[in-house]
Amino acid sequence: MTDRRKSFYAWGYEGEGASDAEVKAFEAIVARRFGLGSFDVTPPPTPADIALRAPRVTVPASLATIVSTDHRDRLEHSYGKNWYDVARMFLRAVPSPPDAIAFPRDEADVVRVLGWCDEIGATVIPYGGGSSVVSGIEPPADAARVVTLDLRHLDRVLDVDRVSHAARIQAGVYGPALEAQLKPSGFTLRHYMQAYECSSLGGWIATRSGGHFVTLYTHIDDVVQSLRVVTPAGTLETRRLPGSGAGPAPDRLFIGSEGILGIITEAWVRIRPKPVFRTATSVRFKDYYTGADAVRDITQSGLYPANCRLLEASEASPTAAIDEPGAVLVLAFESADHPLDAWMKRALEICEHHGGTWDRTALGAADPQRQGAAGEWRDKFIRMPYFIEHLAARGVMATTVESAITWDRFKDFHAKVIDTGRRVMREVTGRDGSFTCRFTHLYPDGPAPYFSLQLPLDKPVMLRQYMEIKHALLDALVANGGTVTHHHAVGRVHRPYYDRERPELFAAALRAAKKALDPRGLLNPGVLIDP
Amino acid sequence: MTDRRKSFYAWGYEGEGASDAEVKAFEAIVARRFGLGSFDVTPPPTPADIALRAPRVTVPASLATIVSTDHRDRLEHSYGKNWYDVARMFLRAVPSPPDAIAFPRDEADVVRVLGWCDEIGATVIPYGGGSSVVSGIEPPADAARVVTLDLRHLDRVLDVDRVSHAARIQAGVYGPALEAQLKPSGFTLRHYMQAYECSSLGGWIATRSGGHFVTLYTHIDDVVQSLRVVTPAGTLETRRLPGSGAGPAPDRLFIGSEGILGIITEAWVRIRPKPVFRTATSVRFKDYYTGADAVRDITQSGLYPANCRLLEASEASPTAAIDEPGAVLVLAFESADHPLDAWMKRALEICEHHGGTWDRTALGAADPQRQGAAGEWRDKFIRMPYFIEHLAARGVMATTVESAITWDRFKDFHAKVIDTGRRVMREVTGRDGSFTCRFTHLYPDGPAPYFSLQLPLDKPVMLRQYMEIKHALLDALVANGGTVTHHHAVGRVHRPYYDRERPELFAAALRAAKKALDPRGLLNPGVLIDP
Repeated sequence: MTDRRKSFYAWGYEGEGASDAEVKAFEAIVARRFGLGSFDVTPPPTPADIALRAPRVTVPASLATIVSTDHRDRLEHSYGKNWYDVARMFLRAVPSPPDAIAFPRDEADVVRVLGWCDEIGATVIPYGGGSSVVSGIEPPADAARVVTLDLRHLDRVLDVDRVSHAARIQAGVYGPALEAQLKPSGFTLRHYMQAYECSSLGGWIATRSGGHFVTLYTHIDDVVQSLRVVTPAGTLETRRLPGSGAGPAPDRLFIGSEGILGIITEAWVRIRPKPVFRTATSVRFKDYYTGADAVRDITQSGLYPANCRLLEASEASPTAAIDEPGAVLVLAFESADHPLDAWMKRALEICEHHGGTWDRTALGAADPQRQGAAGEWRDKFIRMPYFIEHLAARGVMATTVESAITWDRFKDFHAKVIDTGRRVMREVTGRDGSFTCRFTHLYPDGPAPYFSLQLPLDKPVMLRQYMEIKHALLDALVANGGTVTHHHAVGRVHRPYYDRERPELFAAALRAAKKALDPRGLLNPGVLIDP
Repeated sequence: MTDRRKSFYAWGYEGEGASDAEVKAFEAIVARRFGLGSFDVTPPPTPADIALRAPRVTVPASLATIVSTDHRDRLEHSYGKNWYDVARMFLRAVPSPPDAIAFPRDEADVVRVLGWCDEIGATVIPYGGGSSVVSGIEPPADAARVVTLDLRHLDRVLDVDRVSHAARIQAGVYGPALEAQLKPSGFTLRHYMQAYECSSLGGWIATRSGGHFVTLYTHIDDVVQSLRVVTPAGTLETRRLPGSGAGPAPDRLFIGSEGILGIITEAWVRIRPKPVFRTATSVRFKDYYTGADAVRDITQSGLYPANCRLLEASEASPTAAIDEPGAVLVLAFESADHPLDAWMKRALEICEHHGGTWDRTALGAADPQRQGAAGEWRDKFIRMPYFIEHLAARGVMATTVESAITWDRFKDFHAKVIDTGRRVMREVTGRDGSFTCRFTHLYPDGPAPYFSLQLPLDKPVMLRQYMEIKHALLDALVANGGTVTHHHAVGRVHRPYYDRERPELFAAALRAAKKALDPRGLLNPGVLIDP
């Protein structure tokens, strides 16, 4: 990361986004998809374009080396990376930036910064990679003063236990640096997601992020062995155990706590040897529900594929029409221990039973995930965040909502959410957009459907239109029995729906637990619960 | 259960224990094992043998049909089923019985009983099957009045969702009645353990019980989809979801809460089709550590055996000598979907790599788990609880302690615990007992070792001797980095060690959560945390 600088207003690193040629090609696809002629393109903001209110804190000399009130630093930490965040940057609208950014070098610095914030009554926003899409790291407008605590320098793998397949890792490390440090040992965490490049281990844990594996080890929750957490009431460390039955699991209180209970500074996580056996293919189904039936049978079979992502055909390729029929299943098994022929054979029998078809010549190819429709989709998926800014510049909304639902309710749920999406896009803008579904993770008792939306908005009112559409969709998820988020956290955007989803008495218990650990309510107020 | 009555002083149902011939044979084995001649046998208690203090509550007329102050009912609910509990019954020592037992017929009754207890300031002890071995359902001596809330009549499977593989089940149902009700649907929960016959779904959830599967779905935690819980502050229900990332998992606060936060009345749990494919065998290793190395490789392979229990040879057969060398691995795969040849073949390759040997003719036999050394051990295991009373009557201690530890520390941990066990038995009694290890559950990052102890005590001081030995062992588990319990819960017996194991700030958070849900501290005081 040494010489790279993150964009202050959009995804990723400066100079690593889409090339002019890529943007042009992408623009043409979007124009064709929505039948548009040309676009009104807002130029990207520069730091000088955006005035910020003066910092409302005075950094004491003792913290001067690790706390910044630099204009660009404050800008960079003002928003997450959702389309709405980037769009506000293009509108040069940043009314509530943090007053200062702390960059602790170690856990003792974290304690010192918390102490200072407690002293001056500053709200503290724990910050990993800043990839939140739910305003989880956005300073609340009504806070008197705000210090964002950016953990990027706690970026080391401290210990690798080759016998137990576990590693002790500092929470601020981003995905690529984490894997680079594990690599010499032959191990990998294998927790990949779209935000992998600019998100951190601590952020994954605090938000219950979903990773590479579609079955079994779906959330980071499943690989946390123990945690270190700095709270305003003190520092705690859970015991390093493969399993336990001693009371409610302590780690589970902090996993998903989104910075309201404490700052995760370190974790022991379960790692695995790099896979050496792999088999993958793409299976076509006549429609999404037929594909879903096959996927359900695979998920309930005990075969545990590493990948089993079912995409609507219109999402499987960036050049597909918005209503292209059919579904594509990206199916893969991987292992560091044994060949997977028996596993794939049985999974394909299940697919065949549901009328699935696949290219029998491509099976077992060297790197089949990167070939065909699946490969095309994968490349698009990894680079997608870099295109958000070009959509925002053109007033084209792009967002996702994701959920989980039991299989018995899935078809009804899917139909209602899709219907809501199509209806609300038309109601709000008078236009049709694309609104597609894929499964990101799977459980024997149900899938995690992930809906992607693209739609040209009317630029002068695009923020309002975005919010109307987004909230109609979030409402549809929760009203139809799903969760408001399978792996994107709650933050501030999902709060009203989270409040409907979780039992009120659980919120009461969580509020009480927060009071015990953060008596003055410094940490991330408004996220998950009200003070 | 209709015509069967549970023993008030020992394990199981009246008239279903060991026959006189079985007891005689068992006695001979124990005598030979410890080089004893004859035993002083205390006769089992009758209810009339034990005087109880008068009930300190007056049952209101409105609750008369569901609240009992019957002498035998109170006796039956005074202790759990550990050797220590049964031994106290043989000593006719029951100084702190509950004052009344409530038998609610439905959730509304649970609410009414809680309301009454709140009114009269009675301590409430939630009670499932009463199989606690950690004094989890024992009235605290200092409580002013105690009402035990026995959920046995909440015993129905309410709904089976064949599509999502899930069932809605009342919490008071015992294992056999649960499976009997699921059977017509072709599904099973497959959550078996030694206490299966007299323990309940709600008890399993409240205590994080460990079940049938040695890998993957080890604890009941893994199959809970949602919960209904009655707390003094109101009733809550978590949303039925296959997965979620919305805040800290609400279910996880109640799973393992051991009755201190509320009464679990219902749960949706994940069920599975009855397995139709099975393959099993027993593998011999030259010593326990060699077997453990093989087991570690299997556990880290991604093969996920249903059974993979490694026993010391001296434990594998009831007729074995206390110091019989070697280890026996009971290895099994099962599936409702596919043949398991590839799975077993690879697991046996791993065993062979570590010098394991097995009977190649027995492989794949119809019901191989019930054959050979493994079968012998299994039969003993299932019937073992019925023998506790005969040991207690003879002053022979039998107990277990169980833990979990990462693989890198396992051998050292095992050696130290075994050493402590052997040393403390001799120190306390001047005699050698048997002290053996097996693995009950396995994780890629470590095993759950389970230690079984048998030792003749000196009857007049047997309770004190028992406690000295037990506490030395519990101390050894926690002092050497393990958990005080992998699946037997904390209750009151494990409390001092649990207090050392879990972070104090987690206890503070849990205490605050309890205060929010149980403001007057009615529920199970002294379990997990102090008021």
